[in-house]
Amino acid sequence: MSAPVIAIDAMGGDFGPHCIVPACLQSLAEFPSLHLVLVGQSSLLEELVSAEPSVDRSRLRILHAADVIGMAERPSQALRAKADSSMRVALQLVRDGEAQACVSAGNTGALMALSRYVLKTLPGIDRPAMVTAIPTEAGHTHLLDLGANVDCSAEHLYQFAVMGMVAAEALGIERPRIALLNIGTEDVKGNQQVKLAASLLQQAPGLNYVGFVEGDGLYRGEADVVVCDGFVGNILLKASEGLAGMIAGRIQRLFSSSLLARLAGVVAMPLLRGLQAELSPARHNGASFLGLQGIVVKSHGSAGVEAFRSAIRLAHREIREDLPQRLHGRLEHLLL
Amino acid sequence: MSAPVIAIDAMGGDFGPHCIVPACLQSLAEFPSLHLVLVGQSSLLEELVSAEPSVDRSRLRILHAADVIGMAERPSQALRAKADSSMRVALQLVRDGEAQACVSAGNTGALMALSRYVLKTLPGIDRPAMVTAIPTEAGHTHLLDLGANVDCSAEHLYQFAVMGMVAAEALGIERPRIALLNIGTEDVKGNQQVKLAASLLQQAPGLNYVGFVEGDGLYRGEADVVVCDGFVGNILLKASEGLAGMIAGRIQRLFSSSLLARLAGVVAMPLLRGLQAELSPARHNGASFLGLQGIVVKSHGSAGVEAFRSAIRLAHREIREDLPQRLHGRLEHLLL
Repeated sequence: MSAPVIAIDAMGGDFGPHCIVPACLQSLAEFPSLHLVLVGQSSLLEELVSAEPSVDRSRLRILHAADVIGMAERPSQALRAKADSSMRVALQLVRDGEAQACVSAGNTGALMALSRYVLKTLPGIDRPAMVTAIPTEAGHTHLLDLGANVDCSAEHLYQFAVMGMVAAEALGIERPRIALLNIGTEDVKGNQQVKLAASLLQQAPGLNYVGFVEGDGLYRGEADVVVCDGFVGNILLKASEGLAGMIAGRIQRLFSSSLLARLAGVVAMPLLRGLQAELSPARHNGASFLGLQGIVVKSHGSAGVEAFRSAIRLAHREIREDLPQRLHGRLEHLLL
Repeated sequence: MSAPVIAIDAMGGDFGPHCIVPACLQSLAEFPSLHLVLVGQSSLLEELVSAEPSVDRSRLRILHAADVIGMAERPSQALRAKADSSMRVALQLVRDGEAQACVSAGNTGALMALSRYVLKTLPGIDRPAMVTAIPTEAGHTHLLDLGANVDCSAEHLYQFAVMGMVAAEALGIERPRIALLNIGTEDVKGNQQVKLAASLLQQAPGLNYVGFVEGDGLYRGEADVVVCDGFVGNILLKASEGLAGMIAGRIQRLFSSSLLARLAGVVAMPLLRGLQAELSPARHNGASFLGLQGIVVKSHGSAGVEAFRSAIRLAHREIREDLPQRLHGRLEHLLL
C-alpha cells in the first residue's frame, strides 16, 4: 500500500491555520509515513510552516486556494459561488486520487454539500451521514446521523445502520450491536419511521440488530451503533456537550466553596479535566462522513490543536482500513 | 380558598405504597393545611398508615380501588379493561371536584390516556403535554413535550409553547423567554414543523419568543421555556439522565483511584451527591401534564420517598396558582 496522503482544508474552523498548521506538523511527527497537503492561502501557510524549521517538507505540500468558506455561509452559496475554496480544492484532491482523505474544521453544511457534489455517494446510498464515537459506561457507541439529514425515512435509517456497522467494524468492533434510538423499548413505541426501520433491520440478514434503546440506554452502552435521524442526533450530541460543560462548571465551583473543598480540588481537578475532554466527543474527536466515495472527516469548528490532531488520526485510520471500499463491499449485500 | 386536596395513586411506581405512603405522611407534616386521599388496596394502605400512629387522620383518607395498572401495560388496555384502577379512581376524584390534583408514579402512557379520557383537555388544546424543569447554568428551563406526543405539527408546538409559558409564569418566572429546540439558530435550519412553528410564534401577540436554541444553548439557560416534540424531548431528557449518571459513576471511580484521591473524595462526594439529584430532574422533580381540565403530576416510576414528595410539592404549588384556570384564561387570547 502506498503512503497515506490527507488533504487538509487549512483555512476552516474558528481558529484557522494558526491552529491547523501546528496540528498538521505534529501529526507528521506522529505518523512517519503520512503525507499532508495543506490547502489554503499559500503565503500565510508558507509563513506558518517555515517558522518550524524541523518540518520534513518532502511529506508536506502547500496548495494555494484563493477562497475561504465562512462558518456562517449557506451551503448553496458555498456550492455555487466559490469554485476555488480551500474546502473544495481539498475534496477535489480526494476525488482525483491525489489524497485518500480530506479533513476540515470548516462549515459543516458546506462540507457536506461539497462532499456530495465533488465525491458523490456510494452506489445505493441516498444520503451520507455523520457519525462519531461517544463515550458510554461500557466503552464507546457510534451515534449517527449527527445532523446531515433532518428528515429521514425508514430506508434512510436502515442505510445509516449499515454504514454505522461497517464504520464500527473498521474501528475494531466485532459484530457491532445495532440499535435504533427510541422513546421506549417496546415494539409499539416511537414514530412511524422508527417502527418501519425496526422491521427492515429485523429482516436484514447478518445484522446484529438488538432493538430499540432509549437515551439512558445509549449512555449505558447497550449498543455499539445507535441510529437516529439528524435532527435528534444533533440535538442529543449538543445537549450532551452542554450538560457535560455545565456539570464541569458546577464541580469547579463546588471545589472553591470552602478551604477544605479547595484542597480536595487540587487533587480532583486534574483528574476531572481528562474526563471533560472525553465527554465532548464532537469537540474532541471529529466526525466521519459516511456513504461517500472517499473519506471526509469533520473536525469541530472550535477544535484546538489536540482535537484537530484527533481528526487527522481518525482519517488516517479510515485510510488504513480502506473504509469506503469496505462499505461498498458490504452495501452490495445489505442494501434494499 | 378551601384546603388543598390531592388524590394519590398509591399503587403506582416501581416501589408502590411502601415508598408512596411514607412520602405522603411526610408531605402532610410539611403542609399543615394539605389533605390527601390515598387510592389503592385499602387493607394494605391502612396497614402502612396505622404503623405511623402520629398521623393526622382528619387530613388523610383512604379510598379503595381494586385494580392496579402495571408499569408495562398498554394505555389502551388500561383504558378499557380496568375500570377500578387506583390511577383512574384518583383522576375521577379530580374530575368530580373532590380533589384539585392527582399525583401518580405509575405507567406514564396509561396516566396520559386516562387523564385525557377522565379529565378532558382544555378548550382549544388538541393534546396535553408533559413538562419538567431541568437545571441549567442560569437556573432552570421548562422543557416540553417530554414524550406524550411523538409526532407534532407546528400548531401543536405552538400550543406547547403557550402552555409552557403559563406554567413557567405560575412558578414565578416573569415574561418567560420561549424558544424552539433546533439544530441551528439560523432561520433556514430545522424541519418543516419547527420552521412553521417559529413563524406562528413570531406572529403571536405578547409572547416573548426568542428564536431557536440548540442542545447546548438549552443547558446554557438561553430560554425559560424550550419546546420540542415528545420524541426529541423524551430522548433528550433520558440521555441527560444517562450522561449525568455516567459522569457520577466515573467521578466516583476517580476518587478511589489513589489514596490521595480517596482523601479528596471524602470532601468532594457529599457535595457531588447533591448535584447528582438535581441533574436527574425527571427522576427527582416530577413532570406536570399541561392542557387538561385538572392538575396531574407524574412522579418518576423509580421515584424514592424524596422524589415523590417533590411531586406532591409541585402539585400543591399548581393548586395554589390555580394552573388550569390560569391556562384557560391565557389560551383564550393566544390560541389560533
